[in-house]
Amino acid sequence: MPQLRIALAQVNPTVGDLAGNADTVVEWTRKAVEAGANLVVFPEMVLTGYPVEDLAMRGSFGHASRAALDALAARLGEAGCGEVPVWAGYLDLDEVGPRNAAAVLHGGAVVARQFKHHLPNYGVFDERRYFKAGTTLDIVRVHGLEIGMVICEDIWQEGGPIAALGRAGVDLVVAPNASPYERAKDDARLPLVARRAREAGAPLVYVNQVGGQDDLVFDGDSMVVATDGTLLARAPQFVEHLMLVDLDLPGGAARMDVEVADDFAVRRVVVSTALVAGYEPAVCPTVAEPLPEAAEVWSALVTGLRDYAQKNGFRSVVLGLSGGIDSAVCAALSVDALGADAVYGVSMPSVYSSAHSRSDAADLAERTGLHYAEQPIADLVEVFVRQLGLTGLAEENVQARCRGVTLMGLSNQHGHLVLATGNKTELAVGYSTIYGDAVGGFAPIKDVPKTLVWELARWRNAEAEKRGEVPPIPENSIEKPPSAELRPGQLDSDSLPDYELLDAVLDDYVEGDRGYDDLVAAGFAPELIDRVLRMVDRAEYKRRQYPPGTKISFKAFGRDRRLPITNAWREGGR
Amino acid sequence: MPQLRIALAQVNPTVGDLAGNADTVVEWTRKAVEAGANLVVFPEMVLTGYPVEDLAMRGSFGHASRAALDALAARLGEAGCGEVPVWAGYLDLDEVGPRNAAAVLHGGAVVARQFKHHLPNYGVFDERRYFKAGTTLDIVRVHGLEIGMVICEDIWQEGGPIAALGRAGVDLVVAPNASPYERAKDDARLPLVARRAREAGAPLVYVNQVGGQDDLVFDGDSMVVATDGTLLARAPQFVEHLMLVDLDLPGGAARMDVEVADDFAVRRVVVSTALVAGYEPAVCPTVAEPLPEAAEVWSALVTGLRDYAQKNGFRSVVLGLSGGIDSAVCAALSVDALGADAVYGVSMPSVYSSAHSRSDAADLAERTGLHYAEQPIADLVEVFVRQLGLTGLAEENVQARCRGVTLMGLSNQHGHLVLATGNKTELAVGYSTIYGDAVGGFAPIKDVPKTLVWELARWRNAEAEKRGEVPPIPENSIEKPPSAELRPGQLDSDSLPDYELLDAVLDDYVEGDRGYDDLVAAGFAPELIDRVLRMVDRAEYKRRQYPPGTKISFKAFGRDRRLPITNAWREGGR
Repeated sequence: MPQLRIALAQVNPTVGDLAGNADTVVEWTRKAVEAGANLVVFPEMVLTGYPVEDLAMRGSFGHASRAALDALAARLGEAGCGEVPVWAGYLDLDEVGPRNAAAVLHGGAVVARQFKHHLPNYGVFDERRYFKAGTTLDIVRVHGLEIGMVICEDIWQEGGPIAALGRAGVDLVVAPNASPYERAKDDARLPLVARRAREAGAPLVYVNQVGGQDDLVFDGDSMVVATDGTLLARAPQFVEHLMLVDLDLPGGAARMDVEVADDFAVRRVVVSTALVAGYEPAVCPTVAEPLPEAAEVWSALVTGLRDYAQKNGFRSVVLGLSGGIDSAVCAALSVDALGADAVYGVSMPSVYSSAHSRSDAADLAERTGLHYAEQPIADLVEVFVRQLGLTGLAEENVQARCRGVTLMGLSNQHGHLVLATGNKTELAVGYSTIYGDAVGGFAPIKDVPKTLVWELARWRNAEAEKRGEVPPIPENSIEKPPSAELRPGQLDSDSLPDYELLDAVLDDYVEGDRGYDDLVAAGFAPELIDRVLRMVDRAEYKRRQYPPGTKISFKAFGRDRRLPITNAWREGGR
Repeated sequence: MPQLRIALAQVNPTVGDLAGNADTVVEWTRKAVEAGANLVVFPEMVLTGYPVEDLAMRGSFGHASRAALDALAARLGEAGCGEVPVWAGYLDLDEVGPRNAAAVLHGGAVVARQFKHHLPNYGVFDERRYFKAGTTLDIVRVHGLEIGMVICEDIWQEGGPIAALGRAGVDLVVAPNASPYERAKDDARLPLVARRAREAGAPLVYVNQVGGQDDLVFDGDSMVVATDGTLLARAPQFVEHLMLVDLDLPGGAARMDVEVADDFAVRRVVVSTALVAGYEPAVCPTVAEPLPEAAEVWSALVTGLRDYAQKNGFRSVVLGLSGGIDSAVCAALSVDALGADAVYGVSMPSVYSSAHSRSDAADLAERTGLHYAEQPIADLVEVFVRQLGLTGLAEENVQARCRGVTLMGLSNQHGHLVLATGNKTELAVGYSTIYGDAVGGFAPIKDVPKTLVWELARWRNAEAEKRGEVPPIPENSIEKPPSAELRPGQLDSDSLPDYELLDAVLDDYVEGDRGYDDLVAAGFAPELIDRVLRMVDRAEYKRRQYPPGTKISFKAFGRDRRLPITNAWREGGR
């Protein structure tokens, strides 16, 4: 039976870095060719990175992307990779407008190109803002086999281009993707890809990028499924990976001679006709297991933080260490992302700080090896309180703000990226001080609910123990009752419901977008609903000024959940 | 000839305030009925306010909006307004999804409803995220005349529902709008509305809302044009206004018996058939002149600030007064928006502050009557500098941040809304200190380029002189060379190009989205382009955390211009 050796290039591009991303494509193609691949597939818009947002509409960038694609095709030819067709996503710009496009590069030239049909415009996506949809399908014959393509969202929608490919007849479908990570999304992907393979009547090659881009992180999870939906190979998550798969393909798919399948204009392009016999030795397909949930989330957070720092040119991070669980988890993430030598932790005790706030912070530093310093804030706070006559909440907040100014001062002086250590629960209910603990260029756990922060801490410590390493997070930081320590003896539980309960309400209200009646029906007490929803609604202004941070949930604060600040709507009519 | 007395209700709704907005509709309908109106037209989504953003997708809010609409219809009937049909926009929710809708209320019930067809998804708009498009047209017979409707964007697009109405035959078209202000937009509206009236073959009643909603402000500018495009009446900008217009309508429009015009299902609804004779005395139509440019921008800024403060429950604002032009203009805007008694200005001199920074601030306070206080920051700064060993930029920034903490402390203690006084030019090039002068709940001039700030100051002073009032802004604040005064003798011109030149480059790069080659072709020096674009690109992270402020330009920072922070693209390939 005819065979193809397919290379899935699960790479980590950088938005806007046309030159660097082109280098990546050349380098990985060369590796794939050396490994005997007959074709190489890169992720969606690999040449520009994804998402480019409004850069899509800037003519200069669109032209540069097209020019970079042509240059890339030529370079591949010169690099001795011209015989192997390469599927590479890029930004196109034609007379209709900008396009989310992917091209086939072969023989030093662009031999086929196609535009994304389904443009997602929900959640974090604004693709109808940026792109015009495509209506053509280029089917490319490689070693006598017909290869169709769909781009990302095209496989999330029933019918459309996949059905058209099925009708036109293809031996294989390749699907370049830039599908952001969220919890449990990999559970949805495989059945979906399997369904589309059946719909197309051909095996499907799904290639997703890895890496972080502002608040998005991509997990890879690239895979190949057979026509019947069987999973044949799967790449590991969150790492760059070249996956080779030998596929036996019966061929003879081109059932349709006409050029239109449904609403799509089909173009057939011939790259090569000679069939490939089976390889000896065959590549042994690997099916990576998806990571267990805590490991997956941890990897997402590490990747998002690492790439934000590195792609923005930071060599180090600085964060406040309160002795509490949030800053401890952020510190552990930072150490995993950048190495202990790149992490600067600062304990900033006030007059209300407990002894354990310092000792737990120092313990964390010792366990992880990060740089540790103490900057007591009592003197800083005192001049503000005295000069401005601050009391109550104003006095509490000035403590948090003196810490913010301290971290920013250290950042300006030493070039560190400041991390905000707030979690999603705090951000939801506004339990944070704007320009205080909210200060930062990046917020690693802003999409992690408090209860999950604890779970991650326990998981990370257990992992360390399994590996015979020192658990990074002090047990006391995990076990002690959480407190902002902004007044004597203060505990979070003075101001907030129990975190288990609070996170349950927030999961329904924020992620589920459920209204008052639904929350009552879910069994929450009306007083609790009122209290929590009021806090959430009133904190919108704080969230608007919060730093970006890695999305791991179905609905993260930020572009995922767009609500007005000026908003008189109160659930339940209260 | 049959006549209709039409009431255009140019009102100021609040997002989410279903009860308050319904009250507004009842109150204004009553006034219109008392004035003899035969029909009343309110703006787009008047019942929910606009834009409701993701609230559109929350089922509880959609159901509440529908229920509020039914209740409003009943209330209008009970209030003795049941005989006069009222066009009122709302959020609908049906089995297809959320709808940007408008209904006709008559006889205590909803007698017709229609969904917006063209959903804008560019600039500040994300309507394809929120709404499903309509495909029906309800044409309502009122006093024997056929009245069709289109909603906002429907009139900005060629063809579509307007053409369908023209084909179906109508005597009048009403168009509820929520069309945000931007400079020179009113110049575009009239020709557009005139064109659509000709396309529909009927006079067109254009009703737009007024007021501020987060970073948007609506200018009203409601109008009636004749079938031939002649402007018959126009409401003043930025004020609530009930405009009555007597229109002679020849009638006999219902040319089409079939129920489908093009792609639209047309439904005819009869409210009343008896023709109305001419009124005596007739209403004398008023055609308000559009405001001169500076007055228009000033009104937009005043309205945006006033409504942000009031709709969010703030009675007062606090801002730093540096003696410079930006804070002086923000103070004058605040006084115009909220009254001098609601404005608290704080001079926060440092060791580098000039004598005139205080005297100009004090002069401004005296001219405007705002509350004035001095809070020297030398002691506050000194403890940070000493404790953290800050030098250079870190020391400069800590001054701005101590001012930020001071303002936030006063806000927390006294409940003022903090205003950030930065202008668009600074925001563009990152010439501001994050968590320092960028601190604030609202930024009144964030979309005003520096050169326009000066122009507005001069205009406002001249206006005061015309009215025989004290010009609010000290001449010295306008004339002296701008300086951040963060080190001895510092001037903006040390770090930035001349503002005239800088604003010209920014206008092309930010508003025009022009690339490197276009900027060179426009005559800017390559070194200047490189320098400015680099500053703009690198400051994206600061803009993300900047407070909202009134959009007055074609492209404001914020939801209007969405660029990645992590972005390696450099125009000109540098």
